[in-house]
Amino acid sequence: MATLPISRRGELMPSSPIRKLVPFAEAAKKRGIKVYHLNIGQPDIETPKMALDAVRHSDFKVLEYSHSAGNESYRRKLVEYYKKRGIEVDYTQIIITTGGSEAIIFGFMACLDEGDEVIIPEPFYANYNGFAVEAGVKVVPVTSHIETGFALPAMDAFEKAITPRTKAIVICNPNNPTGYLYSQAELETLRGIIKKHNLYLFADEAYREFCYEGEHFSAMCLQGVDDNIVLMDTISKRYSACGGRIGALVTRNRLLLDTVMKFAQARLSPPGFAQILGEAAVDLPEDYFDETKAEYKARRDLIVARLNAMDGVFCPNPGGAFYVTARLPIADADAFCQWLLESFEYNGQTVMLAPASGFYTTPGLGKNEVRLAYVLNTGDIDKAMDCLAVAIKRYTAQLIK
Amino acid sequence: MATLPISRRGELMPSSPIRKLVPFAEAAKKRGIKVYHLNIGQPDIETPKMALDAVRHSDFKVLEYSHSAGNESYRRKLVEYYKKRGIEVDYTQIIITTGGSEAIIFGFMACLDEGDEVIIPEPFYANYNGFAVEAGVKVVPVTSHIETGFALPAMDAFEKAITPRTKAIVICNPNNPTGYLYSQAELETLRGIIKKHNLYLFADEAYREFCYEGEHFSAMCLQGVDDNIVLMDTISKRYSACGGRIGALVTRNRLLLDTVMKFAQARLSPPGFAQILGEAAVDLPEDYFDETKAEYKARRDLIVARLNAMDGVFCPNPGGAFYVTARLPIADADAFCQWLLESFEYNGQTVMLAPASGFYTTPGLGKNEVRLAYVLNTGDIDKAMDCLAVAIKRYTAQLIK
Repeated sequence: MATLPISRRGELMPSSPIRKLVPFAEAAKKRGIKVYHLNIGQPDIETPKMALDAVRHSDFKVLEYSHSAGNESYRRKLVEYYKKRGIEVDYTQIIITTGGSEAIIFGFMACLDEGDEVIIPEPFYANYNGFAVEAGVKVVPVTSHIETGFALPAMDAFEKAITPRTKAIVICNPNNPTGYLYSQAELETLRGIIKKHNLYLFADEAYREFCYEGEHFSAMCLQGVDDNIVLMDTISKRYSACGGRIGALVTRNRLLLDTVMKFAQARLSPPGFAQILGEAAVDLPEDYFDETKAEYKARRDLIVARLNAMDGVFCPNPGGAFYVTARLPIADADAFCQWLLESFEYNGQTVMLAPASGFYTTPGLGKNEVRLAYVLNTGDIDKAMDCLAVAIKRYTAQLIK
Repeated sequence: MATLPISRRGELMPSSPIRKLVPFAEAAKKRGIKVYHLNIGQPDIETPKMALDAVRHSDFKVLEYSHSAGNESYRRKLVEYYKKRGIEVDYTQIIITTGGSEAIIFGFMACLDEGDEVIIPEPFYANYNGFAVEAGVKVVPVTSHIETGFALPAMDAFEKAITPRTKAIVICNPNNPTGYLYSQAELETLRGIIKKHNLYLFADEAYREFCYEGEHFSAMCLQGVDDNIVLMDTISKRYSACGGRIGALVTRNRLLLDTVMKFAQARLSPPGFAQILGEAAVDLPEDYFDETKAEYKARRDLIVARLNAMDGVFCPNPGGAFYVTARLPIADADAFCQWLLESFEYNGQTVMLAPASGFYTTPGLGKNEVRLAYVLNTGDIDKAMDCLAVAIKRYTAQLIK
């Protein structure tokens, strides 16, 4: 019998950029080595107890489908949340999705056709590539640079990238993997571009709560481009509730809302339990974020200081999220990250990082950069940085030999 | 400014076939009329308390991402469940999905490319059309007929439908919307076709537990076609846990598993809470299904008897699921279903049905058929059938006038 072929789309679908390192991390653990995981965006912050309790104390008897757009009570509650963030929407402009992931897929599917192009400043969240393959959409990168702290590329870089097939720009603010917090001025620049070229702006604001320098300016606050702006949101990071798989697509574009609803109806409803969690969490006191932010800010200050104190390492001081992307004095970060797990230990410990090459689309970029997620407490970050400092010295010395 | 276009895919995306009736149902309720909902597949059976309690008594502190394939403990538990159903798989052959819906999308995305064709016996579950649009796949129907109780169409109907672009056949067993339970002989016929033409067989067995005549024969039990068979499963109906959004894609095809995993990794993980529910539910005593099945069987017996007792109505007696598709002595069931909500009442009550035309792809088919979901208790079904009997008489008399 002939082999059954999988689809070309299935072949094109990218693997997770850190996936190939996982077996090396597992092997290291089997050798008894403690691995500090700075490679993933899974926060160690506890999910708010009151939000978990809302699920635990629920007393329904049938776990029914919710409305395809999510429970109305939850959507109405989210209007309050967005109002606190300066975003004016009504509940009919919110469609609850299965994580931020589904909001991005719905946006791609509803706005772009096979062969259409979406512009994304690189480095960017690698899973955008996967969603683009699913939708048959071509990702066109515009490069941001570590020297400017990964600020928005200049207007003419966007102008050069725009073709008749360009339908949208994606912005992640604050950014994963760079932590860069876009200024209002940068958002206004994007506003000019999307207005001039009649494009959608997909704003992934998953890390909205985590800003350490200045205020977050949401794309939803741009004036006169209501139909162009699509907010991709999630409660995953906001409440450390990644496993709940609850996000939202928010837009004031009525035709787009009607279209996305057809995709939402096909998959019936978003998950039920975590909608209860999300609804309860809106009532958390505002100082909940103060505490969490203070914790993340302390971690960022520590990791940036420790990295920049290492010979040949450069790490910008980013304004938000819980990632930094740093340049190492090493030509091939992919090989280095594997070596860290396979051949290195310092006092029985090592560190797992994400090579930045997986966050770039332009071949060859990011080869000497890594992403670090500061999702460990400061004590562990210190120990991880001790490892990294020794590792860089040992690795570079070994290469010189 | 020019209008921002949505995608052609977004335009093509079908609306739910009952969606256009919803405003009429809402208006009827506002007029104080009691509406019996036989139009939707939301069971009224209580979710097993022990399974809900597993969620309520969970005591984790961080709601983390699960493994992209689902919690290993849950997948290992599902191996036990499948073994009880005569299906031998190991836990690496199971990928937990966000509802059965995602299992179907993943299957379409991983096996078929834009322009490829999938053959589905019609009438079929209408959301397959939506998933096909998302994947850019063409649905080719082969027609099953009410006269034969919607049995599998003859082999030559499949042969005629197969082209070089055909990549898969979808079978829903027992069937939604007909309730038809495919025999082992019919499955063996399908086995011959997929083996001869090197096709995938996607088996949607969402209603596996609900068989009232004879045993369910799973596509996973077909011999010598391990690479061809993809099981699309869900806990939604099995445990009346529709809102949990937990399903599974199960196959012994290693290349396909690796490919589907890339799609699974892009969306990070399936929902966390309901995986706990699903894992606990595997330990339900087997008589849990006996009780549920006895209840559904009583309802089926009642609804089929009541329908066939009405002048000019024909309803086959299906072997499974909780749907029947019946032929009415009415030329346009879409108009009739709207009239039931808009212009009819009997003792302040009416009934909402799903016109069957939405479950057919071939234009003009199913115009005099409706789908009824027996998700109400026998008392309510009796009252709903009282309404329907009067309604058919009144509607046909009115047309004669």
